Amino acid sequence: MPSLASANQSFGEPEDYSYGEWYVDGPTSDGKAPQPEPIIPACYHSFPPSLYHTCLASLSLATVLVLSLLVKRRKLCPKCWNGTFGLPSPVDFLATESGWLVPVVVFGILLTNLYMLFLDEDFSPGYLKTLGLLYYPALYYPLMACATVRHQAGYILGCLLSWVHCGVQIWYKVECPRTTKIYRYYSLLASLPLLAGLVFLSCWYPAQLLRIWTGKMAARPEEVEESYYGDYLRRLLSKKKSKSSSPETDRSFLSRALLYFLPHISTWQPGFRFPLKLILSVAMAVITIYQVTLLLLAAFVPIIQKTRAGITVEVTYLLAGFGVVLSENKTEAIDLVKHYLLTVEVCYESAMTLSCLLTFFMLSKSLMTHRANLRAQQCAALLDGSPPPQGKGLRATTIFCWMSFMGYQTAFVCLGLFLQQIIFFFGFVVFSFLVFIPIVYGRNLLLLRVLGSTWPFFLLLVLAVILQNLAARWAFLENRHGQQELTNKKALFAITFLLFLVNVMVGITVGICRMVVSALFNVVHFCQLDRSLLSRGVDIWDPGYRTYCYYLKMEVSQSHPIMKAFCFLLRQLPGSQGLAGSQAALGPSDIEGIHMTRTKSPATRAKQSRIRWGLAYTLIRNPSLLAFRKKALAGPLANGSQPSPPKP
Amino acid sequence: MPSLASANQSFGEPEDYSYGEWYVDGPTSDGKAPQPEPIIPACYHSFPPSLYHTCLASLSLATVLVLSLLVKRRKLCPKCWNGTFGLPSPVDFLATESGWLVPVVVFGILLTNLYMLFLDEDFSPGYLKTLGLLYYPALYYPLMACATVRHQAGYILGCLLSWVHCGVQIWYKVECPRTTKIYRYYSLLASLPLLAGLVFLSCWYPAQLLRIWTGKMAARPEEVEESYYGDYLRRLLSKKKSKSSSPETDRSFLSRALLYFLPHISTWQPGFRFPLKLILSVAMAVITIYQVTLLLLAAFVPIIQKTRAGITVEVTYLLAGFGVVLSENKTEAIDLVKHYLLTVEVCYESAMTLSCLLTFFMLSKSLMTHRANLRAQQCAALLDGSPPPQGKGLRATTIFCWMSFMGYQTAFVCLGLFLQQIIFFFGFVVFSFLVFIPIVYGRNLLLLRVLGSTWPFFLLLVLAVILQNLAARWAFLENRHGQQELTNKKALFAITFLLFLVNVMVGITVGICRMVVSALFNVVHFCQLDRSLLSRGVDIWDPGYRTYCYYLKMEVSQSHPIMKAFCFLLRQLPGSQGLAGSQAALGPSDIEGIHMTRTKSPATRAKQSRIRWGLAYTLIRNPSLLAFRKKALAGPLANGSQPSPPKP
Repeated sequence: MPSLASANQSFGEPEDYSYGEWYVDGPTSDGKAPQPEPIIPACYHSFPPSLYHTCLASLSLATVLVLSLLVKRRKLCPKCWNGTFGLPSPVDFLATESGWLVPVVVFGILLTNLYMLFLDEDFSPGYLKTLGLLYYPALYYPLMACATVRHQAGYILGCLLSWVHCGVQIWYKVECPRTTKIYRYYSLLASLPLLAGLVFLSCWYPAQLLRIWTGKMAARPEEVEESYYGDYLRRLLSKKKSKSSSPETDRSFLSRALLYFLPHISTWQPGFRFPLKLILSVAMAVITIYQVTLLLLAAFVPIIQKTRAGITVEVTYLLAGFGVVLSENKTEAIDLVKHYLLTVEVCYESAMTLSCLLTFFMLSKSLMTHRANLRAQQCAALLDGSPPPQGKGLRATTIFCWMSFMGYQTAFVCLGLFLQQIIFFFGFVVFSFLVFIPIVYGRNLLLLRVLGSTWPFFLLLVLAVILQNLAARWAFLENRHGQQELTNKKALFAITFLLFLVNVMVGITVGICRMVVSALFNVVHFCQLDRSLLSRGVDIWDPGYRTYCYYLKMEVSQSHPIMKAFCFLLRQLPGSQGLAGSQAALGPSDIEGIHMTRTKSPATRAKQSRIRWGLAYTLIRNPSLLAFRKKALAGPLANGSQPSPPKP
Repeated sequence: MPSLASANQSFGEPEDYSYGEWYVDGPTSDGKAPQPEPIIPACYHSFPPSLYHTCLASLSLATVLVLSLLVKRRKLCPKCWNGTFGLPSPVDFLATESGWLVPVVVFGILLTNLYMLFLDEDFSPGYLKTLGLLYYPALYYPLMACATVRHQAGYILGCLLSWVHCGVQIWYKVECPRTTKIYRYYSLLASLPLLAGLVFLSCWYPAQLLRIWTGKMAARPEEVEESYYGDYLRRLLSKKKSKSSSPETDRSFLSRALLYFLPHISTWQPGFRFPLKLILSVAMAVITIYQVTLLLLAAFVPIIQKTRAGITVEVTYLLAGFGVVLSENKTEAIDLVKHYLLTVEVCYESAMTLSCLLTFFMLSKSLMTHRANLRAQQCAALLDGSPPPQGKGLRATTIFCWMSFMGYQTAFVCLGLFLQQIIFFFGFVVFSFLVFIPIVYGRNLLLLRVLGSTWPFFLLLVLAVILQNLAARWAFLENRHGQQELTNKKALFAITFLLFLVNVMVGITVGICRMVVSALFNVVHFCQLDRSLLSRGVDIWDPGYRTYCYYLKMEVSQSHPIMKAFCFLLRQLPGSQGLAGSQAALGPSDIEGIHMTRTKSPATRAKQSRIRWGLAYTLIRNPSLLAFRKKALAGPLANGSQPSPPKP
């Protein structure tokens, strides 16, 4: 797979995209010659990218083969827990405790490569870019798989791979920091997440190796998971603690800072953890915001700045040719054009800032909705705005939506940012040229002139609305026996009839507001998958919301904390003694719905009934446990005598 | 108020708006000279409109004064029922039985005048048009008030007024059927609803007079109302009949036809009547559809037809000047241009047809929603999609929204039609030029050329979606113990990772679909006030939906059928004997909740308890009756001894 990323620099001609220079061609009659743009020299890498890709792809393939053999070897041993598939899993998306740092970093590297791939103008044939969509995940696959295997050999391979990747990328950037594309430092800035990610991995893998060699490796991940789930369940099920379960000292500095800045997170829930896919999708959204903002700024701001610097008296002649005479005085006209260009630039940057802030805010709101929905669905409750239940059992659609959720979230953030930027930029420009400049500078009085000829109409509308509201308050309402009642009905009917035509005109104004409000609302909430853009009753027609509903269902059905805790308890301890031990560890009365199948011998009749009721209740509220229960019963516990399960 | 409507014809210069003639200026080198447009001669009315308006305004004022005196005279008599306001009421918007025909006709006349007013280009000063918004309702006020007074003198005045209006308007149209505005018959076609309305009124008033003089006048309207409400309540409260209460024979031909064409009305509910304001708003919406369609067709179709007829070889030179060479052969190029113009015209007309049909369909759906919401709110029930309750008691906002509801509905239909026309026209043009013509005629292969260079990309997306769906169905789902379960988790995670970048691209496509779906949905549903354009939870921010919610509340609180039946019963009969008679008329057990306050003397203890329970139940479900109940008790029934009312 030669000539992929960074191939642009190898045979890049020194093209200059500075459209502003067009204005500099003529003689500068006012004597101030603008600085000519320094020409960026063509930059050739001493280590060609095609060779880099060939080497790295072979190295990655070799790593995958070694890891695969490693997994196979462990499969042959009796205590294996890595399943039936030879290829090492990149990451367990359904486990929350296996660490989210490495997945976030590798996905971030992938996404950065996607953005760099599609802006690469030297990728001449279209199918090469298309193949890049499959090539990059395959290239970075071993970088993540090395961490998942949790084996010394995996970490060594990871070290090697990440060092090579990181070294070559940094070398490239040092050799050719500036490119001729879009903006001279654009390529460097756009690849910052990639470089940061590779540097992180080059430090993380050696650190893991060091921890293994010094014997400081943490407990096995499933034990950590179990303690997490047990902890979470204990907090969830113990009614007394829930009132004061979030002491200030428990929180990290980051969460306190978030708490301070985002009032939405003020209802912090201890022990709750977001699923890995949600964390990943939010991280990808943040990288997308960075990349899209960078692209939009780099594609517009340098050009308009150059244009502004290159404004000469020629421009006024050009404008005069179109019949636009800003001022008789040439210097004043040039100043005006520069001033207007500056206004446009400020509008663009303000729109960009607003779009980014709104997207961040919507993402944080989205996270809170995700949490509320997840918790509600785990209790089989139905929140007001939460998605409706999608029928029982898994379906192919559920799995498909779960697979594509993260990609959709990333794409929607990207599209939403573009949309917001277009709408806000247009709105700001209209506002500044039609409202702000006329009021502050007394120029471009177009809107005022239109208002000057139509003010009786708008005055009538305003007066009619005020009159109707005042009449409704003071003439048609009467307080009788403590309740507001309608009075003066004949006058009400007469006014309704007389103001009908005026109300039609008010309706046109309100209708335009309705259009604007609904368009703005949809554009601002476009990046949220948890909110349907369609109205009540048809909200599931929205493809984004539909994906979210199914995603949520999959997440709840596959990583329900009760189910997880139950499975870990069962797997951890082969005999009933072990189970009893774990009961002690978890507290005797906390997770009653889980360990009731083993307590037959000492239990009285009443206790057994209570336990059966608990089982039935658990199963009714969590039907997804049904299948796992039978499987679990058929497994390590099948040797014990069972109470006949109640039919829920 | 001189020089209002029809003033345009008095000093209209023979301007020709046929832009198409621009193309005819040059010599027609292909020998076929297009027919020159016949010039419409200036047309002067023999009876100037200013004189017409002066006379009619004076006549209307005189009529109002006479009617006012008439009402005053009746007020002095002891049996008066026309209340405290001297001005005769135009129409009782809250009563359903006082006839909807005359209000619909007069409102239709008003609305037609509004459309003709705003297209009147000769109305030079803006404030005259603005004043027209108030002038026209005042001008047609007596035409409606004459019918409301229900007095011989009122009908005679109505005859006189409608004949004068009708005569003058028909005279004008006969004198000057063609105008130079927009399209020669546009003015005639636009005023058709006006003429039809005036002709109807000129026949209706004499008919009413005839009915009075021949003694065939119907019973007093309030008696009709009472029988209606009694009937409705009997149907509503009798549980047995409700199963088979809609025999085919009860329905009129019209309702059967509606039933056949609109499956939404299939659940026909006997006895239910729409409030007058809803009927009016739907009638106004229909007139708006007619007027907007007429305007859009008249403003575009004749011009493009003329343009098409005037295409000469000059146009090909012009196009070649812009670098567009359709064909080397001149005749073929001309044919192509004509063909393209015909395509544009067909697209425009198809879009217009689709918009009208969709708007009609949405209005009929809207009516069904109104009915369901009204019935639900009358029972104090809450439907899934119905508006949330807006707090107890009337408020000024409620009355204001009720007053403006009809105007908003009209304005929204107008705006919605414009929006739909723009969007559908654009969509159809894009479709025909990018898809239809390339496929059928093999020209304009722009889209195919784009697809030709990007097909690997789209093929990859389609393949990825199919692969993921197939894998989800056949590889990751397993049927265990009768339930679908997830299996092959490692492969699932690997595929999710490897297809992440592809899924981002799929997400971009899905996001564009999401945008299109939500925009189309909002545009199509724009004319409906009963559906919020915003999503669940924030739907009340939509100004249209908010108005609808308050309107519904006012309608339910002021014309609740139980309250109406109760009030009519109380007012109709001063003593208890009469009430007993009305009980016999209404059936002994039908409206238990209403007449329980008078049946003390023969009732046993058990029966009294049942009656009190009924009262409490009625009051709890209909809190708006509380105030009226006290008032009613303080009125004609205060002399009888009352059972102490229970505290609900």
